[in-house]
Amino acid sequence: MSGISYRLYHHPFDAPSRRVRLALAEKNVTCDFVIEKPWAPSAEFLALNPAAEVPVLVCEEAKERETVCDAQAICEFLEETQDAPTLLGKDPLARAEVRRLVAWFDCKFYNEVTAFLVGEKAFKRLQGTGEPDSLRIRSGCANIRGHLDYIVWLAERRNWLAGDQITLADLAAGAHLSLIDYMGDVPWNDHPLAKEWYARLKSRPAFRGLLGDHVAGFLPPRHYADLDF
Amino acid sequence: MSGISYRLYHHPFDAPSRRVRLALAEKNVTCDFVIEKPWAPSAEFLALNPAAEVPVLVCEEAKERETVCDAQAICEFLEETQDAPTLLGKDPLARAEVRRLVAWFDCKFYNEVTAFLVGEKAFKRLQGTGEPDSLRIRSGCANIRGHLDYIVWLAERRNWLAGDQITLADLAAGAHLSLIDYMGDVPWNDHPLAKEWYARLKSRPAFRGLLGDHVAGFLPPRHYADLDF
Repeated sequence: MSGISYRLYHHPFDAPSRRVRLALAEKNVTCDFVIEKPWAPSAEFLALNPAAEVPVLVCEEAKERETVCDAQAICEFLEETQDAPTLLGKDPLARAEVRRLVAWFDCKFYNEVTAFLVGEKAFKRLQGTGEPDSLRIRSGCANIRGHLDYIVWLAERRNWLAGDQITLADLAAGAHLSLIDYMGDVPWNDHPLAKEWYARLKSRPAFRGLLGDHVAGFLPPRHYADLDF
Repeated sequence: MSGISYRLYHHPFDAPSRRVRLALAEKNVTCDFVIEKPWAPSAEFLALNPAAEVPVLVCEEAKERETVCDAQAICEFLEETQDAPTLLGKDPLARAEVRRLVAWFDCKFYNEVTAFLVGEKAFKRLQGTGEPDSLRIRSGCANIRGHLDYIVWLAERRNWLAGDQITLADLAAGAHLSLIDYMGDVPWNDHPLAKEWYARLKSRPAFRGLLGDHVAGFLPPRHYADLDF
């Protein structure tokens, strides 16, 4: 699909947006990026996605313009239209395992960790919807431990989270964890195998864009972009 | 994939479970069904899905047993392993549109409607977690109107929600709406085009299983299983 230009509407503090940015980079797709505030969507953005959610991928070729909404729909679309490397695998059962883990991080991890930590610490301030709720922050900090234990359990059995090769499962997990790491809230040292997996992920060229993110008013901890954290 | 036997762990009040039941029926896959209470999971069920969520599909062949967790992962797995009819379509952009709408209903519709109405009216009683919150029920009843308007908008432009053919988008929408209809809370008569689309969906043989659902203590309204509602 050469001759097509891609534009991604995203937000740096949105984990599904981060997964799509990682997938685009792993697949070497050149893309323009537009930061959109989904809580205050422009009329132009609402016309692209009536759900008012990021990420949205716009594909333009000559005078044709097509829009793909929803992070997983975009990832599956990239898988179906871009050549290797595959980020889903070939075998249907292996692909199902990747999709299970993507849903694990986008639903379960999001509801139990990301919504508490990024929701309270970042989005409330960005949206001007009040002070962070310390009880919810404490819940997020408690809940992340079980998820890091699960990553350790997977990392003891597999090279990457879903199997031998890197897949969307690693990108989904890395998207959420990189955000929590930006907030300084990942207890890496209590979970060395999870840290080792994340260090491998973080050192990939595809990860560079995320490590360069800086949102005004939010300073990441020094180790955020450090490959030897 | 003949010689394989399928077993689905599901709950009749879980919309993603309903989508998978519809997909299995549309694809003529013979399957056993086991009702599981995900809020009080058996040890056997937790071993199948550490996320403790329904639906879970177990595939057995000779002495091999494989497990697929997460509704969309199961639907994609069925798409990849079962022959026609396709429930996703062939063209990558058309498939992306189906997946966008599935996410619309499973995330947006769920958060704005299903969680309020089914959550308050059914799950609170099933789980013994208190009385329904009338404010939340009123929110769900208000929010469903915008979603029915959106279904009308789609039905004015397309034969089925995502295009010419029935797809997972219709099954996802029908799964949620059939649940809300079981609660008696769909204002069908204010949205005749949405009603016409749902009547077509409801009259398909694949829908029969859902219309036969009866959960002890919850009586559906008379029109629930009526094809001329």
